[in-house]
Amino acid sequence: MVKLVLVRHGESTANKANVYTGWNDVALTEKGRKQAKMAGNLIKSITDFHPTHIHTSVLMRAIITANIVADICNFLYLPITKTWRLNERHYGNLRGINKDESRKIFGKEQVLEWRRGFYAIPPEGKKVTSRRYANFDPHFLPQAESLYQTQQRVMPYYYDNVVSRLKKAEDQLIVAHGSSLRALIKKLENIDDQEIINLEVPNAQPIVYTFDPQMKIVDKKILRCF
Amino acid sequence: MVKLVLVRHGESTANKANVYTGWNDVALTEKGRKQAKMAGNLIKSITDFHPTHIHTSVLMRAIITANIVADICNFLYLPITKTWRLNERHYGNLRGINKDESRKIFGKEQVLEWRRGFYAIPPEGKKVTSRRYANFDPHFLPQAESLYQTQQRVMPYYYDNVVSRLKKAEDQLIVAHGSSLRALIKKLENIDDQEIINLEVPNAQPIVYTFDPQMKIVDKKILRCF
Repeated sequence: MVKLVLVRHGESTANKANVYTGWNDVALTEKGRKQAKMAGNLIKSITDFHPTHIHTSVLMRAIITANIVADICNFLYLPITKTWRLNERHYGNLRGINKDESRKIFGKEQVLEWRRGFYAIPPEGKKVTSRRYANFDPHFLPQAESLYQTQQRVMPYYYDNVVSRLKKAEDQLIVAHGSSLRALIKKLENIDDQEIINLEVPNAQPIVYTFDPQMKIVDKKILRCF
Repeated sequence: MVKLVLVRHGESTANKANVYTGWNDVALTEKGRKQAKMAGNLIKSITDFHPTHIHTSVLMRAIITANIVADICNFLYLPITKTWRLNERHYGNLRGINKDESRKIFGKEQVLEWRRGFYAIPPEGKKVTSRRYANFDPHFLPQAESLYQTQQRVMPYYYDNVVSRLKKAEDQLIVAHGSSLRALIKKLENIDDQEIINLEVPNAQPIVYTFDPQMKIVDKKILRCF
């Protein structure tokens, strides 16, 4: 038996402002830092969880959450990989727009479709120019993503870098984002395209999967203290 | 031209208590966290410093300093490697002993020799049993190190993982410890065995080396604001 823990970052300034964020690099709020600490304490309470690796995105709200969790759990010494493949879904031109505002601009139905339709792609935004993507083939950089496209780039990382360790009985910790985790969970739990609409991944509530050696999920728990 | 920045961690609880620490995993003091922030701001002021990688030890005083510096400099997304090869010198049985006290126990001359003699090995302590060294060959785990032995395990990491990137014109950041940095600097600056006695690396004062493409040091600056 081996454990995989998934955590969404604590509240970000964009969560607080109810704004689409995606690949924008926003900070945690004070509340978000407190949530990250609580998540750390919840994970620390899993007495048989001894990860060998931490996986996160290249966005600071996830990295800071991962560092806070690691500090509390005494996991700071663990190797940590920061990969764009665990980034939040790229929200294209919705980035920076308030979610209520977006319904006024584009219509309620259209926005619901972009948010919850598995294959729906929001309007494309400009390519990000951050130094962190400097070694990308510029043709490869997304300008907007469906949840399906997000899943297509999350899963290669998951299979190559997470499963490979789980199969060696090494527990793993992933600290990522609402939609990159939804994309992953959809695959792990074999949730269908319509049902995924109903899955929310709240900030900083660790999800603990236990796998058997054939990578079958034998247990799932969501840890909460608020 | 390419830049290498070395930083020793901020003040630790052991620095404050004037106690030998080595591989003991001690926290930063509040002052140490503030020093780390100041180091971050000093490094941020180097306008042409764009590292591609952060290197640190597996000890939390260095890792937390690295994370604070990265947060301030907007380097959080950078890959970070945590390696025992950048750990502090292993102080053997001196660990946990107050430095003044050690002179009473072992004699002033003996302690001076252990602290400053390049080849002097302090009395061996027990092998550390932390999970972070679980994949080591137990025969390989040091129980005490001279500064020379520290240098012997720092330099392979430096040549393989730091120089290889500097040669590609990629700036690098190392956040480590007083003696692991002294061991490195001794080699970089070709300081002789007697002279190294006089080299102190204070907490959180970034040392900025500029190299030409042949890895010749063409400039060295120490940044301070306190």
